[in-house]
Amino acid sequence: MPSIIDGSSPIGIFDSGIGGLTVVRELLLNLAGESLIYLGDTARVPYGTKSSRTVVRYSLSNAGFLVPKGIKLLVAACNTASAFAIPALRNECGLPVVGVIEPGAKKAASATKTGRVGVIGTSSTIKSGAYKKAVQEIDPEITVYSTPCPLFVPLADEGLNNNDIARLAAQRYLAPLKGSGIDVLILGCTHYPLLKSIIQEAIGEKVLLVDSAQETAAEIKGVLEKNDLANNGSAKPTTEFYLTDVSDTFIEVAERFLGREIEHIEQVDIGNNYG
Amino acid sequence: MPSIIDGSSPIGIFDSGIGGLTVVRELLLNLAGESLIYLGDTARVPYGTKSSRTVVRYSLSNAGFLVPKGIKLLVAACNTASAFAIPALRNECGLPVVGVIEPGAKKAASATKTGRVGVIGTSSTIKSGAYKKAVQEIDPEITVYSTPCPLFVPLADEGLNNNDIARLAAQRYLAPLKGSGIDVLILGCTHYPLLKSIIQEAIGEKVLLVDSAQETAAEIKGVLEKNDLANNGSAKPTTEFYLTDVSDTFIEVAERFLGREIEHIEQVDIGNNYG
Repeated sequence: MPSIIDGSSPIGIFDSGIGGLTVVRELLLNLAGESLIYLGDTARVPYGTKSSRTVVRYSLSNAGFLVPKGIKLLVAACNTASAFAIPALRNECGLPVVGVIEPGAKKAASATKTGRVGVIGTSSTIKSGAYKKAVQEIDPEITVYSTPCPLFVPLADEGLNNNDIARLAAQRYLAPLKGSGIDVLILGCTHYPLLKSIIQEAIGEKVLLVDSAQETAAEIKGVLEKNDLANNGSAKPTTEFYLTDVSDTFIEVAERFLGREIEHIEQVDIGNNYG
Repeated sequence: MPSIIDGSSPIGIFDSGIGGLTVVRELLLNLAGESLIYLGDTARVPYGTKSSRTVVRYSLSNAGFLVPKGIKLLVAACNTASAFAIPALRNECGLPVVGVIEPGAKKAASATKTGRVGVIGTSSTIKSGAYKKAVQEIDPEITVYSTPCPLFVPLADEGLNNNDIARLAAQRYLAPLKGSGIDVLILGCTHYPLLKSIIQEAIGEKVLLVDSAQETAAEIKGVLEKNDLANNGSAKPTTEFYLTDVSDTFIEVAERFLGREIEHIEQVDIGNNYG
């Protein structure tokens, strides 16, 4: 492990696949001076269908790849990993660790006026109850309405962000939330920012959508400043992408998520360094 | 490895997850006297998005779990594994190996009268060109029209077999095949038998659907008889289920695929015995 961690050190971000690139996209937009190292565990994607024990093990092995690269902060840019692995990651890594659940929960809790917040995510995220717990830890008076939207990830992956199938799926999934009186809806999956417009359309214009990727980027900014770890140097920031399995499809989809071309992706074999 | 392999030995079946249970379902219906051992590699599902090298490695490690259990025949009940790993499996296992691609291709080649065959499957199966190659190896004169249907797997997983979203997706995916003059359509994914009725509706009643799971069961029957390995004993056949990761969701979905209750599933850690 490199001995000196300072402001010029990179931020490490991992996800089960490519959804976490929506967080990278926000970091590139809002913390343009920071160097980033992204690891997508595409050989073992998705995490959402796996048991919590397995998700913790995979998350620790991802950290075991990133931490020795001298990162100053670790981002679990994956809802399933954020739901299950944050305590283990904080325990093992000795670094600030930011997940994607707390930032969205904070924003939702502060924004709601009706005291009713909606959450959508994968089946596993919703089943974990992680958002409900995070929101109610901030304010136990808030009622949280959750519903899973399993087709949204494959729709986003396929680039069907804005067609009739996505629209029909959104209407079906969001119907139970429409009569609930929520005024805030958390997009509890890193894929969902790509479907924002049809989600907004289905839930109605009056409901505020909380984009976890945006809130996570804001949280990272705050944590870096608080720990005096923001990059104030003049060196040109770098971005590195690693995947545990590289397929043609993934690169194509990854660029859609990132909103720009990816020049170089390296395939890596990660061991179970912390596993 | 048990030393005696005979008719009473079980058939070993693996898949990346639970789709292969449609093959098990057909075996239970048509080869009711056979004992079965099923391995779903749910810790590493799906294979379709992974590179061929990784799929071969995973397939061999699955075989490395099943072969030492004394199976008499190995079934790769997964299209991605069948597309990439059959030669490696035959090489390493020293057993008859049946995939899900050849049986469907054979049936389609013999059934078409127009000489035009359609194939639908996951992006990776279609990209591999495995069905096209298998059909044209039987009859090079046949024209094969292929199209990927990426939403069909999550639709089947979610039990949305027969609703408007599935119908819209089927219409969208099958539109390019409708003007092609095909009279046979291969369901090139073990999940698709669950969507048979909406697929038939979208492609029209005149097109014969070839169900890979049914054809694979018929092929297995033939291979067992040819090798004098059919179970003629009187011992009650057994069925064992193993998954590399067990989640609540999987069991629920698995039962839908199998068409009956699963009494016992064991979670196993598989090494890379052949990898």
